[in-house]
Amino acid sequence: MTGEFSHMFSRLSQKMKASEIRELLKLLEKEEIISFAGGLPNPAAFPIKEIKEICLDLIENKGPQVLQYGTTEGVSELRHELAKRMQKKGMDIDYRNVLVTQGSQQALDLIGKVFVDPDDIIIVGAPTYLGADNAFKSYGAVLESVPLDDDGMPPELLNEKIHQLKTHGKHPDLIYLVPSFHNPAGVTIPESRREEIMRIAVDNDLVLVEDSPYSELRYSGEQVRPFKAMDPDGRVIYLGTFSKILAPGFRIAWCIAEGEILHKLIIMKQAADLCTNPFGQHVAAEYLSRGYIDTHVEKIKALYKDKRDKMVEALEKYFPKEVKWTKPDGGMFIWATLPQGIDTREMFPRAVQNNVAYVIGSAFYSDGRVSSSMRLNYTFATDEQIDIGIKRLAETIKEEMEMKLKEPKKAFEVDKDGLVIGV
Amino acid sequence: MTGEFSHMFSRLSQKMKASEIRELLKLLEKEEIISFAGGLPNPAAFPIKEIKEICLDLIENKGPQVLQYGTTEGVSELRHELAKRMQKKGMDIDYRNVLVTQGSQQALDLIGKVFVDPDDIIIVGAPTYLGADNAFKSYGAVLESVPLDDDGMPPELLNEKIHQLKTHGKHPDLIYLVPSFHNPAGVTIPESRREEIMRIAVDNDLVLVEDSPYSELRYSGEQVRPFKAMDPDGRVIYLGTFSKILAPGFRIAWCIAEGEILHKLIIMKQAADLCTNPFGQHVAAEYLSRGYIDTHVEKIKALYKDKRDKMVEALEKYFPKEVKWTKPDGGMFIWATLPQGIDTREMFPRAVQNNVAYVIGSAFYSDGRVSSSMRLNYTFATDEQIDIGIKRLAETIKEEMEMKLKEPKKAFEVDKDGLVIGV
Repeated sequence: MTGEFSHMFSRLSQKMKASEIRELLKLLEKEEIISFAGGLPNPAAFPIKEIKEICLDLIENKGPQVLQYGTTEGVSELRHELAKRMQKKGMDIDYRNVLVTQGSQQALDLIGKVFVDPDDIIIVGAPTYLGADNAFKSYGAVLESVPLDDDGMPPELLNEKIHQLKTHGKHPDLIYLVPSFHNPAGVTIPESRREEIMRIAVDNDLVLVEDSPYSELRYSGEQVRPFKAMDPDGRVIYLGTFSKILAPGFRIAWCIAEGEILHKLIIMKQAADLCTNPFGQHVAAEYLSRGYIDTHVEKIKALYKDKRDKMVEALEKYFPKEVKWTKPDGGMFIWATLPQGIDTREMFPRAVQNNVAYVIGSAFYSDGRVSSSMRLNYTFATDEQIDIGIKRLAETIKEEMEMKLKEPKKAFEVDKDGLVIGV
Repeated sequence: MTGEFSHMFSRLSQKMKASEIRELLKLLEKEEIISFAGGLPNPAAFPIKEIKEICLDLIENKGPQVLQYGTTEGVSELRHELAKRMQKKGMDIDYRNVLVTQGSQQALDLIGKVFVDPDDIIIVGAPTYLGADNAFKSYGAVLESVPLDDDGMPPELLNEKIHQLKTHGKHPDLIYLVPSFHNPAGVTIPESRREEIMRIAVDNDLVLVEDSPYSELRYSGEQVRPFKAMDPDGRVIYLGTFSKILAPGFRIAWCIAEGEILHKLIIMKQAADLCTNPFGQHVAAEYLSRGYIDTHVEKIKALYKDKRDKMVEALEKYFPKEVKWTKPDGGMFIWATLPQGIDTREMFPRAVQNNVAYVIGSAFYSDGRVSSSMRLNYTFATDEQIDIGIKRLAETIKEEMEMKLKEPKKAFEVDKDGLVIGV
C-alpha cells in the first residue's frame, strides 16, 4: 500500500507531465509496426570496429584512468580535441570553453537551471524541438514561439515577437534555435539570415542557444557558419553531440560557452551529476584523435542521404497530392503537412492500426496546438520498410481525409501526468 | 570581449557557489602531495579483466543495442538484475521500481527537483554528505541539521528538531541520511535505531532518502537492514551505485522508489538527460548477471579493510593524543576531530605546504560552521603513502596546535562564486 506524497511535490514538478512523444512510442511495441517516430540513428551507422579497437586499447592501457571519476568540466583530452574541431568551424574559443555533458539534453537542462525563474520567457520556433521545451518548462519557463518558414526563423517575425512582448512589459532573456536541419522541420537557416538574427540578439540583449546535433550530417548544399562563429561577446551557447556522429550509447555531448555563463553551467553540473561518464568521454576523445571521425561521418552521410532519397521517392509515389513535405539537406527528419482540418494526433490510432507510426505535429508546438503536420524519421528504417511504411501511411491519410468527420477510436488512455497507462 | 549576462541568471543560480571541496582539490596538483582528500576508489579495485571481457562481448554481439539510445527508466536487463539484488536485502519491490541514474548525484538532483520549492526544509545530519547539500540547495532548500553520534542520527535529537521546527510553523518534507558508513563521519545506524527513525518519519509524514553508496563495503560487524526494507508505505527512496563496487567511470547508479514519487522522478529525468548511458548500463547488467560482482566485492573489501587498518595504525602511531577519530566498519572514510580551537580550514594551507591533504570539516556542515574535524579517505593511497601522509599530517597538526594563534598564510583566493582562482 503506497502512501500519498504528492502534496510534498514542488510547484514546478506538480505541473510537469511526461513527454507525450516518449509515451506514444510505448504503443509501438507491436512487431508489425513500421515506425518513423523515433529519432534514432541507424545502427549501421555505428563505427563498431573502431569502437571495439578503442575500448580494448583504453581498458588495457588506461584502465585506472578511464574507469575512475573525472572532473565536472570533462576529460581534458576530449575538451582539447573538441576545441580544435570547433575552432575549424570558425569559433574563437579554446578547450576551457568546452563543457562535456550527458547528451545535449543535459545542456538544455543546465541552461534552464542557470537562466530560468518561473515565468521567464524563452523564444523558440514553431515548431520546435520538444526536448528543449521539456527542459525549459521544467524550470517554469514560458515559451513564446515564432513561426518558421523554409529558411528557419524569419528575422522580421522574430523582431515583431520581441516588440510585441516588450509592449506588454516582458523581456525575453533567451532564444533557442536548431539552425541546421531543424528537428522536426528539417530546415536550415542561411548565413545571411543568421547574421540578421545575431544582430537582433545583440540589440535586444538575448542569449542565443544554438542546438546543433545534426550540422555534421549535410548531404547536399553548402556548410553554413554556426552562430557561435559570429558571436561578438560570448552570448551564444553552442551544443554539439556525439549521438549522431559516433553513437548515442555513450551519451557524450558538449557545450561551448564563455565567461560567467560557462562558470554557472559548470557549477550547476557539479550539483546535477558531478561528471559525465569518463569511459564514454575517453572513447569519444580517441575517436577524434585517431582521425576516425571524418571518414566515418562520410559513411553515415552516404547512408542517410540514400535513406532520405528513398523516403522522398516513396512520398512522391504514395502520398496524396494535398500533402506537402520538406526535403532536408541534412539531419534525420522530414516534416510533412497534411491538409488543414486533419489533426495528426487524432489520426495516430488509425496509423497504429495500419501498422505505421510517426510523431504527431502538436508535440512540437510549445502551446500544444492542433497540428496537421507530422515528423518522419528516415534514418532508422530499412529501405524496404520506408517503402511499405510510407505506403501504409499514405493509405492512413487517405482514409482519414475521407472519414475525418467521424470520431476516431480511442487507442490509449493517458493519466493526469501524461503517462500512457493502457492500450 | 565577453559581455555581462549575470543579470539574466535565475535567482537560485545567482546564489549557487562551486563546491568548496572540488575547488580545494584543484590545489593538490603538486606531485609530492599525498592526498586523503578525494573520495576515489582504488583502481586496484576495478575488475579490469571482467570489464574487458564484458565490453568485448557486448560490442561484438550486441553492438546495435548497447550503442543506441535507451529508455529513461533504464536498460531492462539491468533493472531486473538490480531488483533481484535489492529483494535479497529485504525490499518489497520489482524491476519497475528501479530507475537507473547518472551516478547517485543525479538521483539527489532529481529528488531536489521533484520535492523542493525555495525555502522548503530538508533534515540532514551534521556532518552530512556535501554533494547532497549542493543538489538540494540548488533548488533553494533550507537544510536543518541534527548532530550525529557514534551510531549516526539520534532519534531523540531528530524528534526534538522536528518539534522545534513545528513550533516555528515549519514542516519538513524530507530527511536525508547516509545510514551505512556515513560520508564523512564513517558511522552506521544500528537496526533498532533505524526502526525508531522509520517510525518518526511515518509519524511526521517525512519522505526518507536513504543514500547507500557504501553498504556493500562492510569489513567488520554485521549487515544492517536498509530503511527501504522497513518502508511501510513507499516513503523511502533508496540510492545505490556501481561507483564503489564496479567502477565510477561508467557513472551508473540506481534509485528505488514507488508510486507517484517514482513517476515524477522519471518525468524529471526525461527532461534532465533522456537516459543514462546505455553502454555503461549494459556493462553493469552483465557484471551482475555473470555473477562477477560477489567475488569481486570480496576482493575490494579485503583491499579496503587492509587500508583502513593501515590508516588506523598510522593514526595511533603518529597523531597527538588529543585527536579523536572514528574506526569505521566499512566504507571509505575516517572522520578525525582535533582539539577545539583548531580550525581545519585554517590549517589546510599548512597541510598543503607539508605535502598532505584532507577535506576540511566545515565542508560537511550545511551551515558552513567552523570545524575542528577533517575527512580522511583511506581507499586510494598506497600503504606507504598512508604511513608517510599521516605522519606529515600529524606534524601539521602539532605545528598548528603550537602556532594556532598566528595568522595562517593565505594559499589561495576564492572568487564570488567560490571557484578557486589562484594559488
